[in-house]
Amino acid sequence: MAQPSSHVTAPLKDELDIVIPTIRNLDFLEQWRPFFQPYHLIIVQDGDPSKNILVPDGFDCELYNRNDVNRVLGPKSSCISFKDSACRCFGFLVSKKKYIFTIDDDCFVGKDPSGKEINALAQHIQNLLTPSTPFFFNTLYDPFREGVDFVRGYPFSLRGGVPTAISHGLWLNIPDYDAPTQLVKPLERNTRYVDAVLTIPKGTLFPMCGMNLAFDRELIGPAMYFGLMGDGQPIGRYDDMWAGWCAKVICDHLSLGVKTGLPYIWHSKASNPFVNLKKEYKGIYWQEDIIPFFQSVVLPKDCTTVQQCYLELSKLVKEKLSPVDPYFNKLGDAMVTWIEAWDLLNSPAQEAAAPVDGVKKN
Amino acid sequence: MAQPSSHVTAPLKDELDIVIPTIRNLDFLEQWRPFFQPYHLIIVQDGDPSKNILVPDGFDCELYNRNDVNRVLGPKSSCISFKDSACRCFGFLVSKKKYIFTIDDDCFVGKDPSGKEINALAQHIQNLLTPSTPFFFNTLYDPFREGVDFVRGYPFSLRGGVPTAISHGLWLNIPDYDAPTQLVKPLERNTRYVDAVLTIPKGTLFPMCGMNLAFDRELIGPAMYFGLMGDGQPIGRYDDMWAGWCAKVICDHLSLGVKTGLPYIWHSKASNPFVNLKKEYKGIYWQEDIIPFFQSVVLPKDCTTVQQCYLELSKLVKEKLSPVDPYFNKLGDAMVTWIEAWDLLNSPAQEAAAPVDGVKKN
Repeated sequence: MAQPSSHVTAPLKDELDIVIPTIRNLDFLEQWRPFFQPYHLIIVQDGDPSKNILVPDGFDCELYNRNDVNRVLGPKSSCISFKDSACRCFGFLVSKKKYIFTIDDDCFVGKDPSGKEINALAQHIQNLLTPSTPFFFNTLYDPFREGVDFVRGYPFSLRGGVPTAISHGLWLNIPDYDAPTQLVKPLERNTRYVDAVLTIPKGTLFPMCGMNLAFDRELIGPAMYFGLMGDGQPIGRYDDMWAGWCAKVICDHLSLGVKTGLPYIWHSKASNPFVNLKKEYKGIYWQEDIIPFFQSVVLPKDCTTVQQCYLELSKLVKEKLSPVDPYFNKLGDAMVTWIEAWDLLNSPAQEAAAPVDGVKKN
Repeated sequence: MAQPSSHVTAPLKDELDIVIPTIRNLDFLEQWRPFFQPYHLIIVQDGDPSKNILVPDGFDCELYNRNDVNRVLGPKSSCISFKDSACRCFGFLVSKKKYIFTIDDDCFVGKDPSGKEINALAQHIQNLLTPSTPFFFNTLYDPFREGVDFVRGYPFSLRGGVPTAISHGLWLNIPDYDAPTQLVKPLERNTRYVDAVLTIPKGTLFPMCGMNLAFDRELIGPAMYFGLMGDGQPIGRYDDMWAGWCAKVICDHLSLGVKTGLPYIWHSKASNPFVNLKKEYKGIYWQEDIIPFFQSVVLPKDCTTVQQCYLELSKLVKEKLSPVDPYFNKLGDAMVTWIEAWDLLNSPAQEAAAPVDGVKKN
């Protein structure tokens, strides 16, 4: 069994949780062992709670299945998706750490062009610990990387940047395509390693993928709700998109930064495009209304916390998107329930109390 | 003497002019010969008209000095900067081609990570001939490159993109830093080859550098005015920045795209930071007001041509920026003169008539 390499450091070891929505692939944790073993893992099982998830020895790991979600949240568990990887956001709720890294179990360690294994977690941490620059574009990309700075013409007053809330990583091999693109380009593979990190400018939305994602839970956690997907819901595969649209609008309002680019992971296999099409087709249709909605959202100035912003957004979702489909009424209600659940588990009193119990492994 | 490589093709040969503001370096054209020789060159001499510019044999080249500028534009020549590379925009005026590539004489052929020489012009042309996507961010960068597409969650209605007006290329070796950064980091070199082209989102300004820049003259030419710099003016080194701010605001208004990233050129030497500081210091101060001005500019809906937008912008510049310094009154007037000069040389009648005469070489 591989042991952690002695040269791999573990920055923010006590301040970061790794959240994984189910592990079907036994190789997954073995391959990540040198990088993940120093950290605390939270696994949220997305399917049948009677099935066991096998976690190899040596990991500090907490498991939650649907029964645990129901036990911890009671009636508020209705906001957590079932039989869908969207359930991962329950892990964000129960974490007590400042930072979260979430990754899918079909994502493995990638290699940079020199052949060196990429420590994705370390790069995410670097992204999160350096400022973002959402108000003006720096043509040499992230000015806080080594060997780069702000270029001529970049206003000095904007060079301090703003705190980074989200670090969105990318994927080598299988790109994150929708079902129609998968069907049309079944053989397309992403082989281009773009050696860049950049801030997504203020006012610009992006498709946030949950496969390889890190964020500052204290800064943006309550906006990282992955919606109602999967069992009993009319759509799937829009969980991370929903979280991304909501979070970006709130980051823009609160002057927080969102970075995308490095690190890459190796995405091993494409999900079934026919299954995906069934999950996505309403979302593909609805997003033509959802995007203009988010592009035009203006949050009131007196919303100064993520929770306040998110509750305001839930009202706007019900008001503006329920004409598209009654689903958005239900989703708007679930957004409120999510914030109630967040505050329940993350109140100052709760934080002083005993942690929520999952099944502790090891 | 190097001859054009037989494998180098010359796309858009009859539709593109290369504009160069003076050539002080005899190696410059020799090194670019395989790539530039098929194209028509316009050289605008930025200094003393009595000095000769040496152009090696074999180039199809047109030279203009200050006497030519005065002869062609008469009293309107006041809008063209003297003793400053900002004079390059005179070349944009007199060109009759659809596309312009402009490059500085200290920029040489770069190499990609595989060691292959970069055909900067071919990459610019590819950037200009494929659409831009300013309304939503694609996390795998330019979706029109080979091997890439739009990712999951990208609205299908936005996938057609918009026409690309500007292609902004980057620099290996000496980065384009302002004087303070040059002084603080005299040894910093750009060695990172970022293999990406991306659209700068709508509503986001960027620092446009004129060193390695291409644009569609028919789409955005009249906005590519490099302002009043150099001899008799209070600032320098903001010529390309000014053009970039004006052009980006107008591109956003007219739904045109601006791309940045590839191609790289090799920027051979840093200009003198002490001289640069003298040229820049007012601009560094003023840009703290200029940027918020451009960020808040709203052009009227009935401005549907670049000329109309630019004249409207000239009014706003005089109104909003002249309190910063009287220079902006003069600049606003020069912007109007520039448009008059543009229309003079680019009216349908003029286009049918004989071309403007510079000194024809070869």
